[in-house]
Amino acid sequence: MNANEAYANLAAHGRTSADLASSVSLLSWDQQVMLPPAAHPGRAGQIGAMTAILHRRATDPHIGEWLAACEGSTLTADPLTPEAANIREWRRDFDLAVKIPEGLAVALARAASAGQRAWELARKDDAFAAFAPHLATLLDLSRQKAEALGYAGEPYDALLDGFEPGETVATIAPILAELRDETTALLDAVKGAVPPAPLPAEPYPQADQQAFLARVTALIGLPAAASRLDVSAHPFSTLIGPGDARITVRYDEADFTKALFGAVHETGHALYSLGHASDDRYGTPMGEFVSLGVHESQSRLWENQVARSLPFWEHVLPLAARHFPTLAGLAPSDVFRAVGAIAPGLIRVDADETTYNPHIVLRFELELALLRGDLLVADLPGAWNEKSRAILGLTPPNDAAGCLQDVHWSMGAFGYFPTYSLGNIYAACLFEAAETAIPDLAGRMAAGNFAPLLKWLGQNIHAKGRLLRPRDLIAAATGKAPTAGPLLRHLKAKAAAIYGV
Amino acid sequence: MNANEAYANLAAHGRTSADLASSVSLLSWDQQVMLPPAAHPGRAGQIGAMTAILHRRATDPHIGEWLAACEGSTLTADPLTPEAANIREWRRDFDLAVKIPEGLAVALARAASAGQRAWELARKDDAFAAFAPHLATLLDLSRQKAEALGYAGEPYDALLDGFEPGETVATIAPILAELRDETTALLDAVKGAVPPAPLPAEPYPQADQQAFLARVTALIGLPAAASRLDVSAHPFSTLIGPGDARITVRYDEADFTKALFGAVHETGHALYSLGHASDDRYGTPMGEFVSLGVHESQSRLWENQVARSLPFWEHVLPLAARHFPTLAGLAPSDVFRAVGAIAPGLIRVDADETTYNPHIVLRFELELALLRGDLLVADLPGAWNEKSRAILGLTPPNDAAGCLQDVHWSMGAFGYFPTYSLGNIYAACLFEAAETAIPDLAGRMAAGNFAPLLKWLGQNIHAKGRLLRPRDLIAAATGKAPTAGPLLRHLKAKAAAIYGV
Repeated sequence: MNANEAYANLAAHGRTSADLASSVSLLSWDQQVMLPPAAHPGRAGQIGAMTAILHRRATDPHIGEWLAACEGSTLTADPLTPEAANIREWRRDFDLAVKIPEGLAVALARAASAGQRAWELARKDDAFAAFAPHLATLLDLSRQKAEALGYAGEPYDALLDGFEPGETVATIAPILAELRDETTALLDAVKGAVPPAPLPAEPYPQADQQAFLARVTALIGLPAAASRLDVSAHPFSTLIGPGDARITVRYDEADFTKALFGAVHETGHALYSLGHASDDRYGTPMGEFVSLGVHESQSRLWENQVARSLPFWEHVLPLAARHFPTLAGLAPSDVFRAVGAIAPGLIRVDADETTYNPHIVLRFELELALLRGDLLVADLPGAWNEKSRAILGLTPPNDAAGCLQDVHWSMGAFGYFPTYSLGNIYAACLFEAAETAIPDLAGRMAAGNFAPLLKWLGQNIHAKGRLLRPRDLIAAATGKAPTAGPLLRHLKAKAAAIYGV
Repeated sequence: MNANEAYANLAAHGRTSADLASSVSLLSWDQQVMLPPAAHPGRAGQIGAMTAILHRRATDPHIGEWLAACEGSTLTADPLTPEAANIREWRRDFDLAVKIPEGLAVALARAASAGQRAWELARKDDAFAAFAPHLATLLDLSRQKAEALGYAGEPYDALLDGFEPGETVATIAPILAELRDETTALLDAVKGAVPPAPLPAEPYPQADQQAFLARVTALIGLPAAASRLDVSAHPFSTLIGPGDARITVRYDEADFTKALFGAVHETGHALYSLGHASDDRYGTPMGEFVSLGVHESQSRLWENQVARSLPFWEHVLPLAARHFPTLAGLAPSDVFRAVGAIAPGLIRVDADETTYNPHIVLRFELELALLRGDLLVADLPGAWNEKSRAILGLTPPNDAAGCLQDVHWSMGAFGYFPTYSLGNIYAACLFEAAETAIPDLAGRMAAGNFAPLLKWLGQNIHAKGRLLRPRDLIAAATGKAPTAGPLLRHLKAKAAAIYGV
């Protein structure tokens, strides 16, 4: 078989797998948005049957043969062509997939399913001991997975690499430590300052919020013809297939900003998805997202750098006031200050922009210690509370508000948390670069013109798919290696504007 | 391998296939109810990829080995046990599936997809000539399919048997001819009579209709926790999996009865689906519907025998008047008469209960002639118009209102139409038997108590799955072989009550 035939086979195989994966995405979206209650028990089996088929396709020995026919051919001569990138990334996916024995994959899936149920109950009852054996099993299986995948430094690296290709403990630990130290210093600095006035807690009827969100998401570039906005208990974004990006929010009638920032955040994910998954590239690595960190950078940039900025509110406040008359008396700077308030709390998902990163560092340090065997599962609650005191200055009153608050570990997702902070870091790097690249970006945003920013992100991030490793992608887009500098400058500038510190 | 192991393998294989088929059902439901416009082109590929997997599973040679180990074992000793019925029906499905060469299956699927698109355009433009070559291809492939499947009488039998197991031209032609002659005589008899007064055409706001439908569908037994009611261009019912029956309607704000009868019709389908597809039997033939005719009998019974009856309106009119104040002055008999009006027209889907069956006979006679080669595709429009004059006394002004009005032939579904009339016939047989079995059924319905009827249908039809052939199932439920008699009695009694003929 010649290289071009083999490449065509890889592309066809990938496209069919992607078309099949659409079913899994749809089953999962439907479960969270549409599924009648009585059908919930059956959905796991439906998703499981599809997952097994996708796993078998991902490890199909033909892939190895086709790759061998492509590698070293003219298709791979220039590593920056889409073909070469696809072949390189197909190889990465195939080698990783075949390294995991089917028995381990099944054991992990079962433990994750059981672990998630046990975690839900344990959190409800504040009963860490009931969850502990599940966590121990998941840690053990994750260590086995790391050994199967292999690593140069330590087991954690193998797991992190699955979420953020190319990153290791050695590359992210210093950047996270810098974030921790600088942001906790910032938290200390604003501790005594006068907090901004909150927005009026008038009722914001759900129907009005919905109309407002349709307007705002369209304004920043989400095409209505290629998306849906629905309601779910936990807001999320999913791509079902080309031209089909779906986001969800949760409405709070006392605070319209929760659904707003949720919708803008998920719109950031959706814009990235629609930008990389064009119909002609869907099913190839060039039509896929490159990492969770880069995905998160897109949601965070639109949420934090855009929708929490003063220029955004200069354009959007009059629009919001038409939907919510109670906002009529406010100035854009009032909203900018209110939504930029810094208020450390115990719960990550409720954290403000500044407090968010210390939450992540706390989790990273603890999961690293667990993986290394430096921390025993039984000692996790105490270690969590101690770190919470040290980093946030707050002690959880119970484990439900402490080490049981997040779902990730119950699904065996160790190495996932750092991608949130990488997303924040990358978002700030990208926005600084966009401000340089786009003349008067703030002025354009204040005029409701977000198209230049979306176009810049589309060209520099979305359309690149998996052409470059995440860190190299950000470097190529911004002209310099990513650091925590831009994020820290962004947070400090905002603290200065709002708190005068 | 012993018989019990083989049976367990068949059951597991069947359950996984059913779990995978859920994805196809969901992709299809979503396409008609939720899908963003930009995603429509990609949906065919997603459904196609799933269909290919299901076809491969249905023809898996292991099935033949497992069946061989079961057949003749103690599991098949008593043909009326669920195990014996499952083995018999698995055999039927497997033998049919492997008889169709993959090339023919693919050619049929492609021709159906192309045919449907060509039909949509041809109907819009009233251009039969543009659709004719597609119809010729579909006829040719359907004849090949009939030859591959085999038949005792004629090719049409093989196709009909796929929709209505056990039926042949010889068994249904006489019953359909009787229906044609008796109902056209009835149409003649009411021709001069004074028609009942129509219902007020006041606006019936969609939100009010929706609330009313939720109430009515729950009243007749559709569990809200195991169903959804949505909107689509063409009303339909689908079972995604256990506990997940979804129906759709279309709202007309000038006429609330359109959505009402649509919803009750689809609820009849959904109740049957929920009744046979219990979680423990899902994926085995005992957990599947037995035929299209029996499926249609359930929708028609609830629509025609129940929701168009006087007792139904005695209970439901006061309820309807609460949602639609304009109905307040009416008596139940006014509504009963209005919704029982007989008004022959050209379009099948708009036909009243009496005119509906002649529409079906017209199509059956024409598709039979096409399959036999007695009618050429080019001569179809003329033959249609001639039969329309002879049977309905009406001549279509164009082919869009004539031989191009239905989608079925454009998808290659020859042999499908008769199942609609069989459904009407079976519905009337079942309702007559239920009236005998349930003391004072009319009185219970007038009191809003539909549970005894649903229970009787559940025990005698729903729970039986594919235990018996359709005709035997109806005979077992009613105590006698099904005939057109009960349906004709039902239609004549209604004509007498409304038109005094």
